[in-house]
Amino acid sequence: MEERNILLKIAYDGTNFCGWQRQPENRTVCGTLEEALSYVCGQEIRLDGTSRTDAGVHAYGQQASFKLRSGIPTERLAKAVNDSLAKSRLERVGEIEIVWAKEMPGDFHARFSSRGKRYVYKISNAPQVDIFRRNYCYQITRPLDLDAMKKAASLIVGEHDFACFQAAGSTPRETTVRTIYDLEISRTGDDIDISISGNGFLYNMVRIIVGTLVEVGLGRRAPQSVAETIESKDRSKAGHTAPPQGLYLKEVFY
Amino acid sequence: MEERNILLKIAYDGTNFCGWQRQPENRTVCGTLEEALSYVCGQEIRLDGTSRTDAGVHAYGQQASFKLRSGIPTERLAKAVNDSLAKSRLERVGEIEIVWAKEMPGDFHARFSSRGKRYVYKISNAPQVDIFRRNYCYQITRPLDLDAMKKAASLIVGEHDFACFQAAGSTPRETTVRTIYDLEISRTGDDIDISISGNGFLYNMVRIIVGTLVEVGLGRRAPQSVAETIESKDRSKAGHTAPPQGLYLKEVFY
Repeated sequence: MEERNILLKIAYDGTNFCGWQRQPENRTVCGTLEEALSYVCGQEIRLDGTSRTDAGVHAYGQQASFKLRSGIPTERLAKAVNDSLAKSRLERVGEIEIVWAKEMPGDFHARFSSRGKRYVYKISNAPQVDIFRRNYCYQITRPLDLDAMKKAASLIVGEHDFACFQAAGSTPRETTVRTIYDLEISRTGDDIDISISGNGFLYNMVRIIVGTLVEVGLGRRAPQSVAETIESKDRSKAGHTAPPQGLYLKEVFY
Repeated sequence: MEERNILLKIAYDGTNFCGWQRQPENRTVCGTLEEALSYVCGQEIRLDGTSRTDAGVHAYGQQASFKLRSGIPTERLAKAVNDSLAKSRLERVGEIEIVWAKEMPGDFHARFSSRGKRYVYKISNAPQVDIFRRNYCYQITRPLDLDAMKKAASLIVGEHDFACFQAAGSTPRETTVRTIYDLEISRTGDDIDISISGNGFLYNMVRIIVGTLVEVGLGRRAPQSVAETIESKDRSKAGHTAPPQGLYLKEVFY
């Protein structure tokens, strides 16, 4: 049987996973999904995901591709896997959902073919903490100055060397230059969404950008200081790393 | 030192607990809270809760009382316990929160002194399931007829023998007559809240009432049939038991 190259769009609640990437000892999104796919397809499946999201990080639109020899029709894959993932938990929706599956040309690869990604970071700026949202947003009870945050955000958009926004001790990369296409901050009631797209992201880059913007919003940094922070290429000059539970991989561009 | 009688108001996310009531082998809200209280107060604490909520059921306003000999000021209890419950999870809000603590007369008892309770049951009636809400509401993707549900709800209000809404196999009670003070159904966007208060509730009563109302809302039962269901005193004539994750203990009346 001819080998098909299948691309999946995947949503998941990252709360109870040790991140995306397969690990021998820990429960991960990729590992859980590979197990369900292998069961449904009757062959061992290895997934290539676009983004290795960290523990606690969520996704609306992760993408992952794999090679399939079995005869199951592509359009039946999503439902079969979703059912197999949900059925162990009575009356519950699964933590992982395949949104769709489609067949791609043989040379397509979810990660290497990607031209960029969009993340959304969710903040609750309500004056009271809500225990029911603790795994789904960053709760900041002191009021945030959105105008200041937007000013700072505008300095991040464009092509820059973002070494200052890379976690200390990251594996060295060929270059720390990346292009941020847009960085938009919007408020609905007490909820603040920070939407950021770019051609690539360094390790913890979105969470460090958010931590820096939050410090601007709290008045601890001047908006214009972000330009110097970027120029410094020094992680210690940037803000704290915002917690993982506010971060959502929204979409992947091809 | 004189013994004080302390009453707590408690909110919790029931997702990862085997219900309220202390169990030797399982993680429960009461057991977790007793451990934190015992640590903070330096004496073994035994809590009497108002409602023995089931696994997966949440609370905004559970109440529980206990006898305290240690000298810790009542007004410092809530923060001390909340801090001790949250500190094990970096950057996370705890799953349990003491909203307030106050001193009561010696003969007050959280359960026996209670005159009634209010529960809220949350339904999402959005056309798509949201994996991020799977532990916090009942997701029904087919449209619900709210007018029909309200008609049915009006027949439940008042004093009735509610044997039909009691889980089969429940421990026999002296009487299955209860008074429902009000039962209100409201919609905000795709979210439906069913708010119900009464002087007492049989085992699974709110969830069976909600399951029955949902079947009315889906057109599977006529609204007026609920009167006959109550008259029948027969559990098998009522609807399904709605899942626990939509149920919230809202408040306790004294």
